[in-house]
Amino acid sequence: MVIGTRTGADGTREHAEFADWLAERARVNAQRVEPIPFSALSGWDFDATTGDLRHHTGRFFSVRGLRVRGAGPEGRADRSQPIIDQPEIGVLGILTRTVDGVRSFLLQAKAEPGNVNGVQLSPTVQATRSNYTRVHRGGSVRYLEHFTDRRGRGRVLVDVLQSEQGSWFLRKRNRNMIVEVADDLPVHDDFRWLTLDEIRALLRRDNLVNMDARTVLSCLPPEHPADEHGALHSPAELSSWFTEAKTRCELTADVVPLTRVTGWHRTPTEIACDAGGRFRIIAVDVTAPHREVPSWSQPMLAPCARGLAVLLYRRIGGVPHFLMQALAQEGCLDRLEIGPTVMCVPDEQAGLPPDRRPPLLDVFGSLAPDRIRYDQVQSEEGGRFFAAENRYVIAELDDAFPTDVPPRFCWMTLRQLKELLRHSHYVNIEARTLVACAEALG
Amino acid sequence: MVIGTRTGADGTREHAEFADWLAERARVNAQRVEPIPFSALSGWDFDATTGDLRHHTGRFFSVRGLRVRGAGPEGRADRSQPIIDQPEIGVLGILTRTVDGVRSFLLQAKAEPGNVNGVQLSPTVQATRSNYTRVHRGGSVRYLEHFTDRRGRGRVLVDVLQSEQGSWFLRKRNRNMIVEVADDLPVHDDFRWLTLDEIRALLRRDNLVNMDARTVLSCLPPEHPADEHGALHSPAELSSWFTEAKTRCELTADVVPLTRVTGWHRTPTEIACDAGGRFRIIAVDVTAPHREVPSWSQPMLAPCARGLAVLLYRRIGGVPHFLMQALAQEGCLDRLEIGPTVMCVPDEQAGLPPDRRPPLLDVFGSLAPDRIRYDQVQSEEGGRFFAAENRYVIAELDDAFPTDVPPRFCWMTLRQLKELLRHSHYVNIEARTLVACAEALG
Repeated sequence: MVIGTRTGADGTREHAEFADWLAERARVNAQRVEPIPFSALSGWDFDATTGDLRHHTGRFFSVRGLRVRGAGPEGRADRSQPIIDQPEIGVLGILTRTVDGVRSFLLQAKAEPGNVNGVQLSPTVQATRSNYTRVHRGGSVRYLEHFTDRRGRGRVLVDVLQSEQGSWFLRKRNRNMIVEVADDLPVHDDFRWLTLDEIRALLRRDNLVNMDARTVLSCLPPEHPADEHGALHSPAELSSWFTEAKTRCELTADVVPLTRVTGWHRTPTEIACDAGGRFRIIAVDVTAPHREVPSWSQPMLAPCARGLAVLLYRRIGGVPHFLMQALAQEGCLDRLEIGPTVMCVPDEQAGLPPDRRPPLLDVFGSLAPDRIRYDQVQSEEGGRFFAAENRYVIAELDDAFPTDVPPRFCWMTLRQLKELLRHSHYVNIEARTLVACAEALG
Repeated sequence: MVIGTRTGADGTREHAEFADWLAERARVNAQRVEPIPFSALSGWDFDATTGDLRHHTGRFFSVRGLRVRGAGPEGRADRSQPIIDQPEIGVLGILTRTVDGVRSFLLQAKAEPGNVNGVQLSPTVQATRSNYTRVHRGGSVRYLEHFTDRRGRGRVLVDVLQSEQGSWFLRKRNRNMIVEVADDLPVHDDFRWLTLDEIRALLRRDNLVNMDARTVLSCLPPEHPADEHGALHSPAELSSWFTEAKTRCELTADVVPLTRVTGWHRTPTEIACDAGGRFRIIAVDVTAPHREVPSWSQPMLAPCARGLAVLLYRRIGGVPHFLMQALAQEGCLDRLEIGPTVMCVPDEQAGLPPDRRPPLLDVFGSLAPDRIRYDQVQSEEGGRFFAAENRYVIAELDDAFPTDVPPRFCWMTLRQLKELLRHSHYVNIEARTLVACAEALG
């Protein structure tokens, strides 16, 4: 089954049956999402002492303050901001099976209130702990038992905690899982088995494979046995580069009451930065007849502009090497993770002098169009973020681009990135999306 | 050169020349250590607001409070305690070289105020960041440049952040490094090249190879190429076990002012637990004519009793598998690391009913003496801990011991542990000592 094949710069040809299914699921799962004032939130309140925005059960998540001090690899930072605190570890789980030698993955057409387009393809299970321990008393989560009670049910291929947006989430991690099942499962209308080739074709379209599916797929072990030869740096050298970056990083991030965040203000409908800033906290009311809970209201983080995440690579000795960056992110548990070559909000860069822009943004800007291998807009998590999109780009540098790079950068092969993805605390969420997209290039 | 060969249960035979060297270094590096009241500390004060014990520069370390809530794998915990906060990342670095095909390591006979026996064998470099960035204006640290400015100087074999005692330190990590040098270096009188066989013989003696040398050596990559066959669990299964344990762990640990630690009291000479407890905070005055700084005073953490760390293993399909434990430790950055089979303070266990004792302590207690493969007392870090010793034991279980173990335990081969040691956040400091000792068994 061919789902999508790129036939030109913009055009896609897709299997009519898949398109029909997706359209039908979008119709059935349609949600109505309305911005509301904070005072209209049900079950959510600003704490009288701290000003933190919390659910009355103490579960789900809260909006708190974060004060950041000290220098990271990007220079000095000394500021505060609201941040989403979601201490529970949720499950992002994809079921996989092999039929006639072809592996496929069970994805779900799932609507989230923050999605710009309603339904996107999600993991088989995408559930917070509150979600599956029944805090909100909704319906049960389909296929959850394959991930939470695995004795004798399937073979685990991936099960690793990975971080999420370090600028928006406080030390948030989710459990990225892929579990192989042998038996034929009943497939609910919202779900569909898709091969890796099919998913990769869909990754070449905007806003279709959601963030959670992308991160889980990026953790899939390499299909072919290791060929470590040809990497510029040994694993010990990579480890040393990252350790050195952590040692140099003097960033500290402390949770503070939301009332003590400076430079931000609260109106009846938003918490916003006095100077514009990168995001706002808003409240929405959601009606979703087919969700576990048919209607609810919740706070969301709404970015003010689209972000840009660029992965530049060049061939070294014939092997593609990606230029990765040790990126301090204040909400990361270990402060520093490995990010894309460039990560920024382009709207913020326009007025800045070159020495204050991300070091390789201008290199990217000056690339000829034929150097661009991948260029799509993808959505970030629609359950917490409202209309959060990033432009993801993969581009090939000329072979003459110097291999000697500033200390915060390091060249890695895709294979080396995949090895790091077996572990927590290494590759950040935007870089994981780009790994999934790079694999989609074949 | 044979340094020590075990000839019987207690006896060791050692090369006289090495013994003479060590005795001479102990004499030259002798320190006088005297307990003093906190008021006699120079440069250290209790903060007027928080009660935290801090250095006037804000560097080195401080003694703060930690409040622990929620359940870890060992059951519920809800308590507070003093904890050492040393946010800087120090260097524990060993130089290595290969001469005529034999690899050796440059160790240092180094005195620390907390050592029960004065001098122990330490890494080539053992330096806090304050230490080597000259906060205390002492002499320079020998061989430091091989670790901090490595461009063109040597090949890095190991460079990874590893945690230290999670019950005593707040999120403390040090940089564990091994760097290979080609050229002949001048060897100062306190230093000595030792082969791995020699170091391993010394590990079979009490309190001689210090904690920092043990942890660095445990991170040495395996000498022989991987033979993954024969492990009970795949790497994905190990990852899943550890991820599951982290997901279940609801322990939270928050820093609080030392004055808000309950159940502890401060006298002029100690901070102690009302109910006895595991440790006290004391102050000492140190005179050390040959150190960078010839005299100073500092707070130290003094354990109240000797600890016990036991690694049990059994052969599964002929391959030794160690029974490791997912161990919540409140001071650990990611809350949970992999610890020995049993870790406890035996003095505290005596009066407890069996169901409140560590699950495998009684199994260990009932082992026949001929099952014990390793049984030595080793010191913990003598720069922060006063006379801190643990009894480290490795013992072989019968082949009839069940392979099915409670969820907080998991069987791993030594090879699998070594693979995890390439990364941070996995193997705790006591388990790393036991890995080094297990390798010393040959």
